[in-house]
Amino acid sequence: MQTRLTEAFGIRHPIVCAPMALITGGRLAAAVSSAGGLGILGGGYAGTLAGEPDLTQELAHIRGQKFGIGFTTWALARVPHVLDEVLHHFPCCVFLSFGDPRPFSERILRSGAKLICQVQSLRHVDQAIEAGASAIVAQGAEAGGHGALRSTLPFVPEVADYLAMKSPATLLLAAGGIANGRGLAAALMLGADGVVVGTRFLTSEEALTPAAASDRVARATGDDTVRTKAIDALRGVSWPEEFSFRVLKNKLTEQWSHREADATAAFGSLVAAYAEARSRQDFDMVVVGAGECVGLIHDRPSAVSILEAMVTEARSLLGRRATLNFVDGTANPGVQRTPASERR
Amino acid sequence: MQTRLTEAFGIRHPIVCAPMALITGGRLAAAVSSAGGLGILGGGYAGTLAGEPDLTQELAHIRGQKFGIGFTTWALARVPHVLDEVLHHFPCCVFLSFGDPRPFSERILRSGAKLICQVQSLRHVDQAIEAGASAIVAQGAEAGGHGALRSTLPFVPEVADYLAMKSPATLLLAAGGIANGRGLAAALMLGADGVVVGTRFLTSEEALTPAAASDRVARATGDDTVRTKAIDALRGVSWPEEFSFRVLKNKLTEQWSHREADATAAFGSLVAAYAEARSRQDFDMVVVGAGECVGLIHDRPSAVSILEAMVTEARSLLGRRATLNFVDGTANPGVQRTPASERR
Repeated sequence: MQTRLTEAFGIRHPIVCAPMALITGGRLAAAVSSAGGLGILGGGYAGTLAGEPDLTQELAHIRGQKFGIGFTTWALARVPHVLDEVLHHFPCCVFLSFGDPRPFSERILRSGAKLICQVQSLRHVDQAIEAGASAIVAQGAEAGGHGALRSTLPFVPEVADYLAMKSPATLLLAAGGIANGRGLAAALMLGADGVVVGTRFLTSEEALTPAAASDRVARATGDDTVRTKAIDALRGVSWPEEFSFRVLKNKLTEQWSHREADATAAFGSLVAAYAEARSRQDFDMVVVGAGECVGLIHDRPSAVSILEAMVTEARSLLGRRATLNFVDGTANPGVQRTPASERR
Repeated sequence: MQTRLTEAFGIRHPIVCAPMALITGGRLAAAVSSAGGLGILGGGYAGTLAGEPDLTQELAHIRGQKFGIGFTTWALARVPHVLDEVLHHFPCCVFLSFGDPRPFSERILRSGAKLICQVQSLRHVDQAIEAGASAIVAQGAEAGGHGALRSTLPFVPEVADYLAMKSPATLLLAAGGIANGRGLAAALMLGADGVVVGTRFLTSEEALTPAAASDRVARATGDDTVRTKAIDALRGVSWPEEFSFRVLKNKLTEQWSHREADATAAFGSLVAAYAEARSRQDFDMVVVGAGECVGLIHDRPSAVSILEAMVTEARSLLGRRATLNFVDGTANPGVQRTPASERR
C-alpha cells in the first residue's frame, strides 16, 4: 500500500506503531519496522516516571532497523537533555504528544530527524505546523492511554480540511480505535495518509506488556474501558488538565473513575500502594492503558502478523484504491485535500 | 450506491436521516426520502416534552413519501398509545433508541413496519436482536444529542463482528460523526450497511432548526461541543443514568457541563427559565444538540444537495466498491461479515 506517508518515510505500509510508554520497547519498534511499518520507541516520560524501561537498553534492541522515538512533551520539557542523548542514536523521527512541541523542533530537525506531532484538538494544530511537523497525528478519544475528547471519525477529516487550507504538504495520520484493516481503510477514506496503532501492538508478542495485562485486553469488550483523570491524580502524575487516561476498567477505576474531583483532592495518596501493586503485577490496582478497540483484539500474535493481517484486509476492502489513489493527496478523487469551503 | 440496506428498505442511497427530536419534521423526512435516502420523523419524547412539534401535523407534511418514525424509548414507554396512533399512518419503520425496545416490537412488526434499534454499547445489542430488529444502529459518542460513551470508529466493527456471530442477517448502520462522503465511505469500510446522519441534516433547509441555532452550528469547530448530563438535570428531563447530551458549548454549558453532580442536586431548577429562554430563542441558555462533525459543516443547503454531495464524494472515494461490493455481506472481500475469531 502506497500513500504520501510511505513515500515520505520510506516504508512499505502506512502503519506506525505508537510510542506507548512502558510498552513499545526496542524489540517491538524493530519488529514493526522490519515488517514494513514504522516502529516508534516509547520514550514515555523521558525516564521521570517510576518503572520506565532503560532507554539506552531499549535502543540497543533496535539493531539497525529504522525507528522513531516518542515522548510525552510536558515530561520531556522537564529533562530536555534526554532529547539530545537520543538524537545521537539517529532516530528517523521524533514523535511528540501532549504539550507544545515548538521548543524542541529546531534540535530535532537539525539532527536530520523528522518531527511528528500528535494533536488532540483542532486548536493544537497550529503549534504543530509552526514546529515544522512533517506529519500531524489526529488522535481520537477512543485511543488507549492518554488523550483528550475528540473522536477519530469526525476529527480526522476536520484536520484534513484544515491542513488543506493551511499546510497541504503536512501529512496526516489517524490514531485512536484502529486495530485492523477495516480501521486502516476507513482512516484512508477520511483523508489520512496512514495510521498510528497502539492497543493492537500492546498485545503483540514483542511488546513489553506483562502477560497478565495482555490477557485482560484479549478478554475485554470495547465496553470495558473508561477515560478518566482520577488515576493519574491518585498515583501522583501531574498531567495537564486537558488530558485524561483511557484504561481497562478494574477495581481501582470502579471505585474512582467517576470521582475525579475527589481524586484530585487526594493527589498522590496512592503513590506507594500503586508502585507496590505494579511490582506484584496486580492489575486490579494498576491500570492497563488500552483503547476501545480492545473489543477487536482476542490474541497476542507477532507484530509482523498483525501488520500483514491489517494490510491484507485493507487491500481487500480498498481494491485498486490501495495502490492507485492514496500516494499523492492531489491525485485523490478531488475531495480529500480540498477544503470543504471549496468543495460545494 | 447499493448495500444490503438499500436492498432491504427499497431506497437508492444507504443514508438515513436521524429522527432528531424537535428538528426532523415531516418536510425534512420527506425531502430525504424523495432524494433517495430514508427520512425518519423525529417522534422525540412522544409529545411528553414541552416544545415538541405536533406529530399529526408533521405527518401531514410527509405527503406520500416513504418514511419512518423514531422515538426515545423510555419516553414512549410512558405513553405507549402514541405508538398505535402513528402506526395507523403506516411508517415503513420505527426507530427506537435509549431503552428496551422489546415491549414495542410485536406491535411494530405486526403493523408491517420494520424495527430499527439504535444501541450505544455492545451490551445493548442482544435486546435489539431479541426485539427482531431489521437493522441495528451503532451510535458513537461523537453524535449530537443524546448518546453514551462508545466511539463510532471502533464500535461499528465490534458490533459487525458480534452480529456476524449472533445474527448475520441483521443490518448494521453507523451513527455519530458522519457528515459527508468521507464518513459514509469510512462507515462502509468498517462493516456498516449504511449510515444515520443527524447534525448534517440539522442544518438543512427543511429542518425545523431555528436560524439562530443553525448559524451557531455552521460557525462552530468540532472542538466546540461537549457531552454532559448537567443540562437535562437542570431542565428537569429524567434521562436514564447511562445517557448524556452532546450540545454546542454555550454560556450554560460553560457554567455547568463539568458540574454534573451539582446539576443533579439542582434537578429541575431551571425548568421555567429554560422554557422562557426557548421562547426567546436564546441559545446562550438553550442548548443546541449537535455532534462533533459540526466542524465539517459550514452552510445550510437543501436535504437533496446534502445527499447528492455525500453520495458523489463517497462514490469517488470507493470507486468500483461503491456498486460492487457492499450489497451482500457475504460478497464482501471476506472480512466484514466474518467474526474476528474465524479471520486469523
